Amino acid sequence: MDFVIIGGDAAGMSAASRAKRSKPEMNVTVLEMTNDVSYSACGLPYNIAAPEREMDDLIVRKAQVFRDKQGIDLLTGHRVEALDCDAKIVKGTTAEGGTFEKKYDKLLIATGGRSIKPDIPGIDLPGVMALKNIADGRRIKSFLIEKNVKKVVIIGMGYIALEMCEALRGRGIEVAMVKPGKQLLPWMSEELSDVVKGELEDNGVSLYPGHAIEKIEETGSGYNVVCDGLELSGDMVLVAIGIIPNSEFARDAGLELSVGNSISVDTGLRTSDSDIYAAGDCADAHHIVSGQKTWIPLALWANRGGWAVADNVTGKDVELQGIVGTAIFKVFDLEVARTGLTVADAEKAGFEPAEVMVKTRSKAHGHPGNTTIFSSMTADVKTGRLLGAQMVGREGVAHRINAVAVALHNSMTVEGFTSCDLSYAPPFGPVWDPLLTAGNQLMKKL
Amino acid sequence: MDFVIIGGDAAGMSAASRAKRSKPEMNVTVLEMTNDVSYSACGLPYNIAAPEREMDDLIVRKAQVFRDKQGIDLLTGHRVEALDCDAKIVKGTTAEGGTFEKKYDKLLIATGGRSIKPDIPGIDLPGVMALKNIADGRRIKSFLIEKNVKKVVIIGMGYIALEMCEALRGRGIEVAMVKPGKQLLPWMSEELSDVVKGELEDNGVSLYPGHAIEKIEETGSGYNVVCDGLELSGDMVLVAIGIIPNSEFARDAGLELSVGNSISVDTGLRTSDSDIYAAGDCADAHHIVSGQKTWIPLALWANRGGWAVADNVTGKDVELQGIVGTAIFKVFDLEVARTGLTVADAEKAGFEPAEVMVKTRSKAHGHPGNTTIFSSMTADVKTGRLLGAQMVGREGVAHRINAVAVALHNSMTVEGFTSCDLSYAPPFGPVWDPLLTAGNQLMKKL
Repeated sequence: MDFVIIGGDAAGMSAASRAKRSKPEMNVTVLEMTNDVSYSACGLPYNIAAPEREMDDLIVRKAQVFRDKQGIDLLTGHRVEALDCDAKIVKGTTAEGGTFEKKYDKLLIATGGRSIKPDIPGIDLPGVMALKNIADGRRIKSFLIEKNVKKVVIIGMGYIALEMCEALRGRGIEVAMVKPGKQLLPWMSEELSDVVKGELEDNGVSLYPGHAIEKIEETGSGYNVVCDGLELSGDMVLVAIGIIPNSEFARDAGLELSVGNSISVDTGLRTSDSDIYAAGDCADAHHIVSGQKTWIPLALWANRGGWAVADNVTGKDVELQGIVGTAIFKVFDLEVARTGLTVADAEKAGFEPAEVMVKTRSKAHGHPGNTTIFSSMTADVKTGRLLGAQMVGREGVAHRINAVAVALHNSMTVEGFTSCDLSYAPPFGPVWDPLLTAGNQLMKKL
Repeated sequence: MDFVIIGGDAAGMSAASRAKRSKPEMNVTVLEMTNDVSYSACGLPYNIAAPEREMDDLIVRKAQVFRDKQGIDLLTGHRVEALDCDAKIVKGTTAEGGTFEKKYDKLLIATGGRSIKPDIPGIDLPGVMALKNIADGRRIKSFLIEKNVKKVVIIGMGYIALEMCEALRGRGIEVAMVKPGKQLLPWMSEELSDVVKGELEDNGVSLYPGHAIEKIEETGSGYNVVCDGLELSGDMVLVAIGIIPNSEFARDAGLELSVGNSISVDTGLRTSDSDIYAAGDCADAHHIVSGQKTWIPLALWANRGGWAVADNVTGKDVELQGIVGTAIFKVFDLEVARTGLTVADAEKAGFEPAEVMVKTRSKAHGHPGNTTIFSSMTADVKTGRLLGAQMVGREGVAHRINAVAVALHNSMTVEGFTSCDLSYAPPFGPVWDPLLTAGNQLMKKL
């Protein structure tokens, strides 16, 4: 059997390795358009932050290892451009300028996403960068040194924008951030978003929310980002306003698309063609809390999806329950975490959400080094069901959110969650964990 | 209605405050044998570690606040010595040498526990201390200064012993630890226990497991702890071999006792006399994983129990689901965590346990500052049900364990837990959380 995989990063290489491990006799081919496979894309900002680190230390396993040790037919520089579902053939071009065709019995589309490129004049200027893959990372890291970059304008204020902001500040580079929306993190309770805003300002970042971006101009020495009522200049411009799924050839082949043009898949990761799977940032997912399809590109889900596809292709018949939307990031000394639905999400999904915001200590009463943890929690007034939580703090946030994530997987009520036997010791929190306090407060609104 | 509470710490004061808040017209009396109420007992080692801290900064709320602001009739220096369930009267003596009797409609026994005092010669010598309450803390802290203590022998190697070990080393005091058992933390997988052992040794602690303690002798300048095949000398001896519930007068009054002589209660915290409740370290609990009664004295359960009793006494009819045995502690730079059943517990409870031990990184591939996290996980081979987990590491342990705790509350299988959407970002862990990796490995044994 020929199992062909388009895309050689998280979902694709996870699927390839697992399929070959279960069924060594299976022909497993990976078609990757770049020359890089299996690297930690999420680690890019942290690598850029560290001038002494090689970019290649993000590579988890080299291409040659997949070929020689695992027997995977890994073809880099192979860009798939068309898919014929009836003939079961993918077609494309190679980096050397040739063309190729490849027949498949089972196909996995794991083409990921690409950075959104706003349609404004100047977006293609050489110092206007985006960060999605390791090649982008190399380009940015070289540019910083070659052009002796002292100031960067970042367009966008999402996870990547914030992580890159920290990376650049760590290299002593001035950073100004701009975006059209008014709130720094619009999915977050305003009070929590303001804590993040304070942290950025304390670290010398200039924030300009609420300004539409009109164009980018080259100046003698750098770039001018011309916005609605504002002009920001820098030696480099980073565009980090989000990503979109690479799903065009799937759509053109007649596969069904879903939220945000992601490829629609069932719980077994099958597309509308049952011989074609999709996983990772190009595919949609079932949201366990909303009960609806969603598209949240995240690394764990990509890896898990790759494994599930491999299992299904090798005859194990696996279904994935879905996601609850857990995400964390670090920005300077703050940990930021979310899981589940926001109040706005919850309303859209037909719930009647109530929300609380609580401030608690990060350590027990009287324990030295206490800081504040800000937590918000949302539940459905009609059923008491826990719907989501968000946290911001200097410590004890990133892993704490997982308790709520597991509760969401089990459709727990706030009352049920608040009765859980969570950990306590003075260096790590108050007797009532911040999340239990949030739950106790939230119960009063139900 | 007269609601009388015996014991003014975690369970007792939680119950008193909550009852008075819900029903201000209720007469709420607390009989506390010491002069201290509502303090963070778990914080004692950390306070002792810091010469500049006042012991009273562990007090969460002063006695006078409960009296004046909350209208609770809080009687300190009142030791209850007998209980007449038929007449509904408690009797005791006051610190001034008088006696008292108090009639109740509903009674809460929240008498906590006391340190186990082994029956060996020398146990009552002045420099032989135990640490259970704030008075013990004051005594130890003064003794350290007055006697210019340079070396302490700790008998026992449990949580408190280890926390005190760190506290004393932090003050530059030499520490030797001795106990009869062979393994440092006998409830822990040996490989994990050995990591803790290494940390203690790296911090200059001398460990002598496997030596029965025979007697303690006064020397000219300090004490000699005479053990089987070993003599250890110090300026002070700390006995920390565990606690037992203060349940004697409850037993004498005819109330049913349970595991380890704790007072048997139902899910509503009622004892065998339905007008008498018990909560906190003196009462037993239902273990959700084993389905059996257990006795694990921990602060959160005491607070939660106090609230539940208050709710029941004020007519809200609350039942507590039980505990899963979550506990964490810090020892030097290590975080140690457990939840659920050990392999031995699981066998006793009728399961057929399988266990794995995995070593993972604390951060993503290539991320600077990576350390090792050791995790063990246990499941039932017959049903695939997750039974427990333990973790040791320099970071990312204390709150991570809560994800497993919530899974145990929901009787999840390992497969279900391993499909959970846990958090990921490079500074906080690998893409597959250490607990997910443990779960993935454990599934291979099921």
